[in-house]
Amino acid sequence: MHFSGETKKSDVGHVMWLNRNITKDIGDEPRLPELLASFLDASDLGLRRWIKHRFIERFFGDRPHPFVLSLQHPSRAVLLGYVLEHQHFLRQWVRSLSWVLAKTDSVEATKEELDNITTEFYGFGDAKPSHYELLLRMGESLGLNREEILSTRPLQATAEAINTWQVIGEKRHWVETMAAMHSLELIANRDVKKDGARLTYFDPSILKSGEMTEQTKAFLWEGYEADVEHSEVPLEMVERFANNFGIVD
Amino acid sequence: MHFSGETKKSDVGHVMWLNRNITKDIGDEPRLPELLASFLDASDLGLRRWIKHRFIERFFGDRPHPFVLSLQHPSRAVLLGYVLEHQHFLRQWVRSLSWVLAKTDSVEATKEELDNITTEFYGFGDAKPSHYELLLRMGESLGLNREEILSTRPLQATAEAINTWQVIGEKRHWVETMAAMHSLELIANRDVKKDGARLTYFDPSILKSGEMTEQTKAFLWEGYEADVEHSEVPLEMVERFANNFGIVD
Repeated sequence: MHFSGETKKSDVGHVMWLNRNITKDIGDEPRLPELLASFLDASDLGLRRWIKHRFIERFFGDRPHPFVLSLQHPSRAVLLGYVLEHQHFLRQWVRSLSWVLAKTDSVEATKEELDNITTEFYGFGDAKPSHYELLLRMGESLGLNREEILSTRPLQATAEAINTWQVIGEKRHWVETMAAMHSLELIANRDVKKDGARLTYFDPSILKSGEMTEQTKAFLWEGYEADVEHSEVPLEMVERFANNFGIVD
Repeated sequence: MHFSGETKKSDVGHVMWLNRNITKDIGDEPRLPELLASFLDASDLGLRRWIKHRFIERFFGDRPHPFVLSLQHPSRAVLLGYVLEHQHFLRQWVRSLSWVLAKTDSVEATKEELDNITTEFYGFGDAKPSHYELLLRMGESLGLNREEILSTRPLQATAEAINTWQVIGEKRHWVETMAAMHSLELIANRDVKKDGARLTYFDPSILKSGEMTEQTKAFLWEGYEADVEHSEVPLEMVERFANNFGIVD
């Protein structure tokens, strides 16, 4: 009913989402309940593979996400935008995983999220700086100074996304928060091609060419390395916990 | 009014608290508002020193807390009880600080709490095990096996305290949660004698004598080392943030 109503009002967001994910044929309206149920049904694939499948379709499919396209061989402007927006994401990352830590009783989830936060934000001394520190160094290598970076406010869309993630952490079950956040780490998972992705987050050859600063390579390399584990392991937990709690839907 | 009412009903908890902290003289009843206000007034000392002052009075004053007395030269039974109850506290510790991490906007508080959680629960590999791991090793050195420890449920009083801390984290301002939790770290702060404590958490000579297992010394030593910084630094922040937010009371 909600989708039918919004479509009749020609709401752009809903029409685009239906066209992309469900059907482009207005004649399918009577079948919407069935088509949506089928789209959302995770029982065949299991939750982990369902999430992965949808994510790959959205970002790495026939019409890849524009940011993924521009990151194949990124310009300086793209990388500067990456630094300025992503710093806000990484600070929210700590808050989002902390909602999980604050609410969970599972030692397994606690260890996983602490491990993740430590890598992303805290680091292990000079030998292994955090992902956040690597991002700031990438920004510096592109000609920004640290104070400039840290004092730049997020764009409106970034601020809204961050607010959405904060509300999810506050209001929803910790397993939903884990699902929402760790799905995002699929973005840099270099194994997505095994599951049907047409391309990866960036063209891996740029890690070896001279087209980027060393600090940029260090930042991209870290995600390339960590995000297989940081998406696969927690999404396996999410599937298991969601089944145990009976909240897969 | 609340205290007068409870005292008239001879409620043990309220009478004991008043006797210990405010007055033993029933004739003081009309002056209770003034006496309580004076007890709670942090404007002279500042919040950090007020907390420290009250904490020292309660645990290290003329009538030291019974656990502090038995920890001066602890028996095996006391140490076993310590291991079995404190494991639950350390797991709650992660949750409590995570409420702060989930709610705060302060990078300074984020860094402090991440540093603290890492030391207490996550550790830095084999070279520097977490406080939690050191506690489990102390238990093993006293003859318990790890499965026994981990499967032992908390006593009723421990469970109630943990529930109180969880509710504080969930319901209260993150600065209050910081105040509530880091006050507790004053217990092992070896500098409390500078502020009027008659004794410390344990007699420091036991760290050098042969009366305890090496694993017990390692556990107690870690707190002895870390808890100066883990109480002083965050309580200074709490005072500053509480002033900024106007929530000292």
